[in-house]
Amino acid sequence: MVNVAVVGGTGYGAVELIRLLNKHPHVHLKSIISHSQSGTEIKEVYPHLTNIINVQMNEWNIQGLSSDVDVVFFATPPGVSQKLVPECRKNNIACIDLSGDFRLTSQEVYETWYGTSAASEDYLQEATYGLTELYEQEIMNSKLISNPGCYPTATLLALLPIVKKGWVNVESIIIDGKSGVSGAGRKVGLGTLYSEINENLKAYKLGEHQHIPEIEQFIQKESGQETQVTFTTHLIPMTRGLMCTIYVDLNEEKTTEELINFYTDVYSQHPFVRVRQEGIYPATKEVSGSNYCDIGIHADARTGKVTIVSVIDNLVKGAAGQAIQNLNVMNGWDVTLGLKEIPMYP
Amino acid sequence: MVNVAVVGGTGYGAVELIRLLNKHPHVHLKSIISHSQSGTEIKEVYPHLTNIINVQMNEWNIQGLSSDVDVVFFATPPGVSQKLVPECRKNNIACIDLSGDFRLTSQEVYETWYGTSAASEDYLQEATYGLTELYEQEIMNSKLISNPGCYPTATLLALLPIVKKGWVNVESIIIDGKSGVSGAGRKVGLGTLYSEINENLKAYKLGEHQHIPEIEQFIQKESGQETQVTFTTHLIPMTRGLMCTIYVDLNEEKTTEELINFYTDVYSQHPFVRVRQEGIYPATKEVSGSNYCDIGIHADARTGKVTIVSVIDNLVKGAAGQAIQNLNVMNGWDVTLGLKEIPMYP
Amino acid sequence: MVNVAVVGGTGYGAVELIRLLNKHPHVHLKSIISHSQSGTEIKEVYPHLTNIINVQMNEWNIQGLSSDVDVVFFATPPGVSQKLVPECRKNNIACIDLSGDFRLTSQEVYETWYGTSAASEDYLQEATYGLTELYEQEIMNSKLISNPGCYPTATLLALLPIVKKGWVNVESIIIDGKSGVSGAGRKVGLGTLYSEINENLKAYKLGEHQHIPEIEQFIQKESGQETQVTFTTHLIPMTRGLMCTIYVDLNEEKTTEELINFYTDVYSQHPFVRVRQEGIYPATKEVSGSNYCDIGIHADARTGKVTIVSVIDNLVKGAAGQAIQNLNVMNGWDVTLGLKEIPMYP
Amino acid sequence: MVNVAVVGGTGYGAVELIRLLNKHPHVHLKSIISHSQSGTEIKEVYPHLTNIINVQMNEWNIQGLSSDVDVVFFATPPGVSQKLVPECRKNNIACIDLSGDFRLTSQEVYETWYGTSAASEDYLQEATYGLTELYEQEIMNSKLISNPGCYPTATLLALLPIVKKGWVNVESIIIDGKSGVSGAGRKVGLGTLYSEINENLKAYKLGEHQHIPEIEQFIQKESGQETQVTFTTHLIPMTRGLMCTIYVDLNEEKTTEELINFYTDVYSQHPFVRVRQEGIYPATKEVSGSNYCDIGIHADARTGKVTIVSVIDNLVKGAAGQAIQNLNVMNGWDVTLGLKEIPMYP
Repeated sequence: MVNVAVVGGTGYGAVELIRLLNKHPHVHLKSIISHSQSGTEIKEVYPHLTNIINVQMNEWNIQGLSSDVDVVFFATPPGVSQKLVPECRKNNIACIDLSGDFRLTSQEVYETWYGTSAASEDYLQEATYGLTELYEQEIMNSKLISNPGCYPTATLLALLPIVKKGWVNVESIIIDGKSGVSGAGRKVGLGTLYSEINENLKAYKLGEHQHIPEIEQFIQKESGQETQVTFTTHLIPMTRGLMCTIYVDLNEEKTTEELINFYTDVYSQHPFVRVRQEGIYPATKEVSGSNYCDIGIHADARTGKVTIVSVIDNLVKGAAGQAIQNLNVMNGWDVTLGLKEIPMYP
Repeated sequence: MVNVAVVGGTGYGAVELIRLLNKHPHVHLKSIISHSQSGTEIKEVYPHLTNIINVQMNEWNIQGLSSDVDVVFFATPPGVSQKLVPECRKNNIACIDLSGDFRLTSQEVYETWYGTSAASEDYLQEATYGLTELYEQEIMNSKLISNPGCYPTATLLALLPIVKKGWVNVESIIIDGKSGVSGAGRKVGLGTLYSEINENLKAYKLGEHQHIPEIEQFIQKESGQETQVTFTTHLIPMTRGLMCTIYVDLNEEKTTEELINFYTDVYSQHPFVRVRQEGIYPATKEVSGSNYCDIGIHADARTGKVTIVSVIDNLVKGAAGQAIQNLNVMNGWDVTLGLKEIPMYP
Repeated sequence: MVNVAVVGGTGYGAVELIRLLNKHPHVHLKSIISHSQSGTEIKEVYPHLTNIINVQMNEWNIQGLSSDVDVVFFATPPGVSQKLVPECRKNNIACIDLSGDFRLTSQEVYETWYGTSAASEDYLQEATYGLTELYEQEIMNSKLISNPGCYPTATLLALLPIVKKGWVNVESIIIDGKSGVSGAGRKVGLGTLYSEINENLKAYKLGEHQHIPEIEQFIQKESGQETQVTFTTHLIPMTRGLMCTIYVDLNEEKTTEELINFYTDVYSQHPFVRVRQEGIYPATKEVSGSNYCDIGIHADARTGKVTIVSVIDNLVKGAAGQAIQNLNVMNGWDVTLGLKEIPMYP
Repeated sequence: MVNVAVVGGTGYGAVELIRLLNKHPHVHLKSIISHSQSGTEIKEVYPHLTNIINVQMNEWNIQGLSSDVDVVFFATPPGVSQKLVPECRKNNIACIDLSGDFRLTSQEVYETWYGTSAASEDYLQEATYGLTELYEQEIMNSKLISNPGCYPTATLLALLPIVKKGWVNVESIIIDGKSGVSGAGRKVGLGTLYSEINENLKAYKLGEHQHIPEIEQFIQKESGQETQVTFTTHLIPMTRGLMCTIYVDLNEEKTTEELINFYTDVYSQHPFVRVRQEGIYPATKEVSGSNYCDIGIHADARTGKVTIVSVIDNLVKGAAGQAIQNLNVMNGWDVTLGLKEIPMYP
């Protein structure tokens, strides 16, 4: 058994980690850490855990952790894990960070987009980007995983296969992102009140979202070319689910069929990516509660544009599920352990 | 391994059975039967099953079934299972019926409330009512389980403990039922269109719902007294979840604390019923996707009335989950096999 | 033209007043008062008012108001209007208070249920309860209207006709209340976040809601009998709309038809109350955005109980609309002025 | 008074026309025509109209209409108005058609995209495209208005100002459309059931939507250039509201500020188009129930792309409201008659 701790116990990311870790045959959840709710039983904050997770939340305490746990998951706001990960690594505890603190390799870029100071250079270099399907080899050998953002996960799984092939004109990339509200976390705010979101559709943070440099970093890495992507985010009146509708120009003509065959092949050994047949596009509910990323592809003969529709559950493949998938890879386990779920439909 | 078939493959009850059976360590799903979609792959109807359940749906065929399966689940409209169960039983196939066909012991009552002819007397007598927590002994020895309706499940788990004690004035019972829309199934109709349900709240079938005689039958059985309950149903703009708010007069005075202690004790060996603390009432999302029935109790010192709030996921404890719980009991397995799930929150 | 001010400019009650007052042919909105947002243009808080209401919000200033306005509407939290109404009345400004500060005639009862100190005795005696259909005569002669709460509006319009007749056993009254989330106002809080409310159904404040004494006060007044009602409130995943499902025993037997005829007659001169035909029950969307209260009635021959379903838009008939209806009565205008709206469906 | 008839009485477009026509000071609704529900009172289909619209629906009857009405509104499925409009025009009845039958000038293009035969050439030439803000002069002199589609309305109001200026590279246009479900009408179907739409997000009809040729026709008209637009539609879990997020390359560089100033100027005499300030983007709820089209603009300095966000209520500015706006123009009335509404928020 691997003993784990979850930091950030009152947020949606943490509670989803708890839900999924509970299914894992080789994991024991030893500790839930919450600064704001230290001393409280988790079931008082989340009554759905009554009689299942009978744990009091604790303050961060590296001495206690180092004797107790093998892996720490961070589901914390920006700026937290960059302070705590070094303590863990010095005590040889593996870390899987769901926040953005270790995703950008450049401190300067991080500071521009996040508006706070970056993690230290050493740890940025140690961190491995945990987009499991793409970087399995690196993840296998890493003790510090930077788990991808939700929008970058849906975008990069949809784009990198053709970017790596050199088929994409990287100057043409437009990503129209649409997310359920749980992506905003459990922070209290006017903008996420029920009466403001329900029966409403909002665009937000045009050109300013901190997932932009994360997406660009990996497109550049895999294409070897500079790129600036156009990325718009929208808040959808639903709790879970995220879709990216991606528009690109190709450097060489491909039919829908060719692209579908190519993607099917690329992901044939990756059970969590499913490619839809021609003329069928995935819906977010078709992955709800699960670690799947489902992809639909349309190459338009009239316009020459390729449109890729990619959906995930933002809290699973976009956060907690992919974190556990990475844990599986780090431990050499079957990548689906604890994650073999039929999506919850309807 | 126990081999099972699911009949009614295109409805929500069947697809929820498929989701849950897939988690069960001792069950193999051999066959999905659908009259209307025979010959179609299930993933064409439900793309969320892509790469997970690669099964073509079949027509009903008792010869095929009798050599292949041990248990058949019926998730069919009224009037279907009463015709097919006899074929199964003659071939010694166990049956778990999620429809209402075998719930009412009186043919006359069935015909009054359902408006179609009842199952034959023999099979009505053979059938065991599968309210697991209450009738575990009988279920263990039965091969024909009549799985309770969703409203009766939430109501009877909340009421029968005090009814059996003789504490309830059975003439006072009022049940204000509230259900998510998936309870109406996947039938196409004007009343369940998104634009008719969203941002709307409807009362329906006052005094006419076919769950009324089902509830009354078991209150009468456990109290030894005739009863007519007042039961109103409401359609809530959500997909899953069901709440019954139940109002009763007691024959002897009890405080909230006494009642909570009593219920906690009654259900102490039943992991799927959870009783909330004083002043806390369960919400439907706290059981979403799970087999839990959560109960909150308030004895009002001012009015003398007792209010009990009972919530379930209508598709799980109210249908497919309780069916699998009954399968576990029938086979002498741990009652939680395949059902150990943290509810999906948020 | 009557000049009016609205106090509480950033809440949903105030913004709904602004929407409806804007349709009124004889009203001019002179001033919007907000303590927290003084100096801000209302369109910065509510962009939907862009180019329509170009008004900067002000601090409360009785000198300014007394020279400018004839009527002040208070859409403020508990405890505010009780301080400001006296200033208005001393300056001969009429007041319509949407808060609960002047609804309960007993200071002691107010302080028990609201947990803060009550308005002064003088003004409590001056205040007229603005349930328009029932108290039109008194409203006509009043300068201080206490606008009813949302749940009491739906409940009392449904109950008082038969209570006044002496038909109701007042000890039997059970009110199962269900409200959209806008009733909780625009206050930021964990409990009204989208992800907590969506796809969820909660019961809250059992036996503790401050609308209980308000309902009881008027049932007692009209029946001449002491009463304690059982009242449960539920939060429905929708923004607008409120339903009360009311259960009563009658002292004399009545059929559904007799009751429907009686109610139709009682409300024949009141255009905003509509009584449904036998077997039809109103849905909240059927009154959305409008000042209607729609009522459905079922007298159950089996159980002897009468069930009444009453729906309103909580922000209109339950707040801003009824306030304007009262303004119309106070001024001797047609009661429907500014309120003649077909509900917004779907 | 102008006497009008509405054809298609049971659909959402017709019922929204009825709601809005009822506010119009110069219009009298004489007749509601429904083939499927002829002989039924409209309140039986739509109980929210009880006591307001007491009208029995009729069969189409040109003799009756020609003596009774001045204008007929068609809110009918494709293929219907092309048959009935000629009867009206021969009897000198003005027509406002909300369907797509007269929008495309080329019969061939219509037949390709709609899959049924087109209206006759004569009437196609007589018809005027009713995008009010752009074609007010032509509408003023027409008796046959083809009311724009919902997506084309939001798109063309957002794009045509800069297209006419020649600023847009017309080969670069990408429109990411997102619509509430009421746009699909009140047709019964699996895809618009509540349980399929709620908590879900779907892309549909990629490259196949019949609004594509409509958008292209007017971009070509105003630019003088051939164009093929990339257009994707998504179904949003909400009833009303539509957003187009539009991506274009400009032929000459413009800042966000320059574009906002330009649009503000273009629409300064058009009260129903509102342009947001820099950094603010409109949300669909901010136009709910109203005839507004709200526009937000972002010119990205990093990527060189311009993103325009345009929102409408699909049933108002996208259908019934714009139809009445056109009626106002045809009659030389103030364009806002019957449409002066503050959007319903929240």
